[in-house]
Amino acid sequence: MEPIRIGILGYGNLGRGVELACAANEDMQLMAVFTRRNPESLTLLTPGAAVVAAAELEQWTDKVDVLVLAGGSATDLPQQTPEAVRLFNVVDSFDTHANIPQHFAAVDAAAKETGHIGVISVGWDPGMFSVARLYANAILSGGADYTFWGRGVSQGHSDAIRRIPGVADARQYTVPVPAALEAVRAGKNPQLTTREKHTRECYVVAEEDADTDAIREAIVTMPNYFADYDTTVTFISQEELNRDHAGIPHGGSVIRTGTTGQNGENTHVIEYSLKLDSNPEFTGSVLVAVARAAKRLADAGETGCRTIFDIAPALLAPQTPDYLRAHML
Amino acid sequence: MEPIRIGILGYGNLGRGVELACAANEDMQLMAVFTRRNPESLTLLTPGAAVVAAAELEQWTDKVDVLVLAGGSATDLPQQTPEAVRLFNVVDSFDTHANIPQHFAAVDAAAKETGHIGVISVGWDPGMFSVARLYANAILSGGADYTFWGRGVSQGHSDAIRRIPGVADARQYTVPVPAALEAVRAGKNPQLTTREKHTRECYVVAEEDADTDAIREAIVTMPNYFADYDTTVTFISQEELNRDHAGIPHGGSVIRTGTTGQNGENTHVIEYSLKLDSNPEFTGSVLVAVARAAKRLADAGETGCRTIFDIAPALLAPQTPDYLRAHML
Repeated sequence: MEPIRIGILGYGNLGRGVELACAANEDMQLMAVFTRRNPESLTLLTPGAAVVAAAELEQWTDKVDVLVLAGGSATDLPQQTPEAVRLFNVVDSFDTHANIPQHFAAVDAAAKETGHIGVISVGWDPGMFSVARLYANAILSGGADYTFWGRGVSQGHSDAIRRIPGVADARQYTVPVPAALEAVRAGKNPQLTTREKHTRECYVVAEEDADTDAIREAIVTMPNYFADYDTTVTFISQEELNRDHAGIPHGGSVIRTGTTGQNGENTHVIEYSLKLDSNPEFTGSVLVAVARAAKRLADAGETGCRTIFDIAPALLAPQTPDYLRAHML
Repeated sequence: MEPIRIGILGYGNLGRGVELACAANEDMQLMAVFTRRNPESLTLLTPGAAVVAAAELEQWTDKVDVLVLAGGSATDLPQQTPEAVRLFNVVDSFDTHANIPQHFAAVDAAAKETGHIGVISVGWDPGMFSVARLYANAILSGGADYTFWGRGVSQGHSDAIRRIPGVADARQYTVPVPAALEAVRAGKNPQLTTREKHTRECYVVAEEDADTDAIREAIVTMPNYFADYDTTVTFISQEELNRDHAGIPHGGSVIRTGTTGQNGENTHVIEYSLKLDSNPEFTGSVLVAVARAAKRLADAGETGCRTIFDIAPALLAPQTPDYLRAHML
């Protein structure tokens, strides 16, 4: 079998996660990383892969089977994915939930026009958590859904703290409230407010002579980000932050509870949970598995936009259908 | 939308679970239950549904979209599914893992010959646990798989105890060993023997004057079923068994752990777990969700045998793809 030739657009944490996932899968070959930075400034982990200016993407259409987009959802992907799918089969991790329908429409139109496959919103949420929600809802038609995130680093919330005057650096952890998680797992079907589901832990490095009381107040009262949560703020040194908070762990649980029986007398709890030491490396691993599916869909002559909902699970696996039935079913 | 017209072959615990799941889904209509017993001996829960002798299946091909087979895997399904798929689109819960390839081949040939869809091995294991294993393996290509069952009633083990002379009734629970589950969840990647993973709890009603020591010995030394496990045997009265052990709960966890990073320095734990008050009602709910998918595959002109691996998740859900993307992704 010829390996599946992968390109990566963007070489931040996620791009490196995709690169590592390519190396971990024998049927994958990383051909090139495309960057908007000076290509000479990047050193890849993968021997033999090229570093190419993003402006030269068009010259690689014959050399890349699937382009994995490793940019951000705020400004990169809404533009990049519909453009890139004109040249390549693509996979992205677009995660602005509210804008998914719009993003899907843009990618679908461009993909159909040019005969490519574009898979969007791949990762763990959206992604594997979404699949868990869908299966659980299809099985237990009456019931309640719960999603808990963490314990893990929220990049967006960490950034929001860093923008406060007097803050040199910060790391924010989203933490599920144990009692809430326990009640849900016990099938008690609780009604939970935002505050009852998660707490937020902030580790902050203040600039010299900064007013730490003012920083704390600015954090805990920040609308949308922190005001609706019980938030703790701990000031630490840059050394401590670097030493104790360098990782990017995350995870969480998708839980659906519902009942069956003539009078709803039997309760069922379905839970899908992740404990991830590295959010970007896990997300990169999902993107690469889905890139395999994208190649197979394209080989079968399919075109247009897809999400993980539209892809038969077997298409993600390197093994043959016979093998999967004999060993994994 | 016209409802999907469902037939059920077999009216034991699983058949009734399928019936309840039909009632819980607005797009489903139970048309008939087919039975090898005297049809007059059955009373359904569903108003308007017919009770029909299994011998008359052929007369219902125009009135049933999907026939759900609710028989057993030992003797019923190996024969029934290939036969029934000649007449109907079918879904079964064939769960003899070792014989799945053979069953698949038989159903595939008959389904292709007659232009139907047959989905086999649907439920939670095989079924949802299998999907969890497949996704987790596709994402974490290097890693270890663990499946824990229980705490739940094993029908096969309960039956094995009942066949021992002097036993009037019995209920056997399969129970995961907490320390093993904990080590796996912590990503410690332990090597576990059969004995280290599960214990077996037996509640036994002895016949009057039976030799309980001999019964206990016959249980704990029984090859395949109990000899490889730490097994406890508790003798109770029939009243206690009826009062405290009437339910058919089950469940368990599929866990995959693996690492990413340049030197495997980041550990990830993926877990899918079920806590089910009623094994047959949950299995019936999965069968009905997959019957929806079978109808859609048949409407799209597909034929042949499928497993849950081959079915895009969205096909199981009653909602439109647009709705799913907007609300569940």
